[in-house]
Amino acid sequence: MADEVILLSFWPSMFGMRTMIALKEKGVKYEYREEDLVNTKVPLLLEMNPIHKKIPVLIHNGKSICESIIQVQYIDELWSDKNPFLPTDPYQRAQALFWADFIDKKDQLYVCGRKIWSTKGEEQEAAKKEFMEILKILQSELGDKPYFGGDKFGFVDIVLIGFYCWFPAYQKFGNFSIEPECSKLMAWGKRCMERESVATSLPDPDKIVGFVLQFKKLYGIE
Amino acid sequence: MADEVILLSFWPSMFGMRTMIALKEKGVKYEYREEDLVNTKVPLLLEMNPIHKKIPVLIHNGKSICESIIQVQYIDELWSDKNPFLPTDPYQRAQALFWADFIDKKDQLYVCGRKIWSTKGEEQEAAKKEFMEILKILQSELGDKPYFGGDKFGFVDIVLIGFYCWFPAYQKFGNFSIEPECSKLMAWGKRCMERESVATSLPDPDKIVGFVLQFKKLYGIE
Repeated sequence: MADEVILLSFWPSMFGMRTMIALKEKGVKYEYREEDLVNTKVPLLLEMNPIHKKIPVLIHNGKSICESIIQVQYIDELWSDKNPFLPTDPYQRAQALFWADFIDKKDQLYVCGRKIWSTKGEEQEAAKKEFMEILKILQSELGDKPYFGGDKFGFVDIVLIGFYCWFPAYQKFGNFSIEPECSKLMAWGKRCMERESVATSLPDPDKIVGFVLQFKKLYGIE
Repeated sequence: MADEVILLSFWPSMFGMRTMIALKEKGVKYEYREEDLVNTKVPLLLEMNPIHKKIPVLIHNGKSICESIIQVQYIDELWSDKNPFLPTDPYQRAQALFWADFIDKKDQLYVCGRKIWSTKGEEQEAAKKEFMEILKILQSELGDKPYFGGDKFGFVDIVLIGFYCWFPAYQKFGNFSIEPECSKLMAWGKRCMERESVATSLPDPDKIVGFVLQFKKLYGIE
């Protein structure tokens, strides 16, 4: 029986991009189903992720796997013969999992990014400062390596890269620039964009800017 | 060369208990170093976990591994010949990782528990309600199985059991009872306590109650 793989996601989701990139890196054929979360949570999502009711959901032969980082690990383990994402050495694996967890921790990148475009004044300034501090810690972990895991595009790259297409939106709505302090991280982003899996999974940054504008209008955020 | 394994933790930490149980389940000899976090963060902790500055930290042959769930995975992978915690099947692994992540998610068990003993009035009532809802979801996932993973004590059990010795403190300071709605989960806790690794890693619940009293006094929480 051929594998039936379905990805439920919403196009601006950096979390959904991770799973999409992982599937493409492994050459897994899948069906993409768009869930428009700005409007309503659709029944299939509620059925497949009853606990968190969040995208992305990966449905493999009828069974759902939730949480993007867990999905990327699952994809890596199941299709282990091609392009491994996680190192085999347990210590290196623990380090990769640590950085993935760091990126997603409460009050980390996603929350700060969201505050940058949805708040003003002091709250926005604090979010920008925190956002840049997180990026600088990540840049310091990257160091002079081409990718987080070393010479090969891997787990932490997959977890982080979705934020890259949001950078222009953060910069525009926050009126700041990431490049001066994080040029190495920006170069890493460009390097990742040369991979087909990434280039075909990340939406055009202008489309993200348009999405944020629409969202702000819809919810009356100035 | 023999492995040098050091665990930096603080005795009331349910997160540190996880790593301790995992080491004991594998029969790994380790040195325990107490870090009294109520007083000050000591230099070794800052050196070994510079990013989050939090216990527990596992130091294996001089290299530090942070975040308790990652430590338990690391221990499981490195000492893989004895008592595996995570299932080998990728889907079952993903499910175990999902529930571990669920337990630690923002605003989940730890945060609600802390609010139960550190707040009053509406905030406390909301925390108690949320806390019981999380426990009921977990109990429903446990179902009629003896352990979360099935017949064997495993990954999700290790991640959750540390909270069990805090239950009497939550109940006392929150003036409520877990048992009526979560008798199956309480029975699971008792079952886990029959294991030597758990019984020798969880402090006496009365000591936790005393710790909370001291903490409230120190920080002027009524």
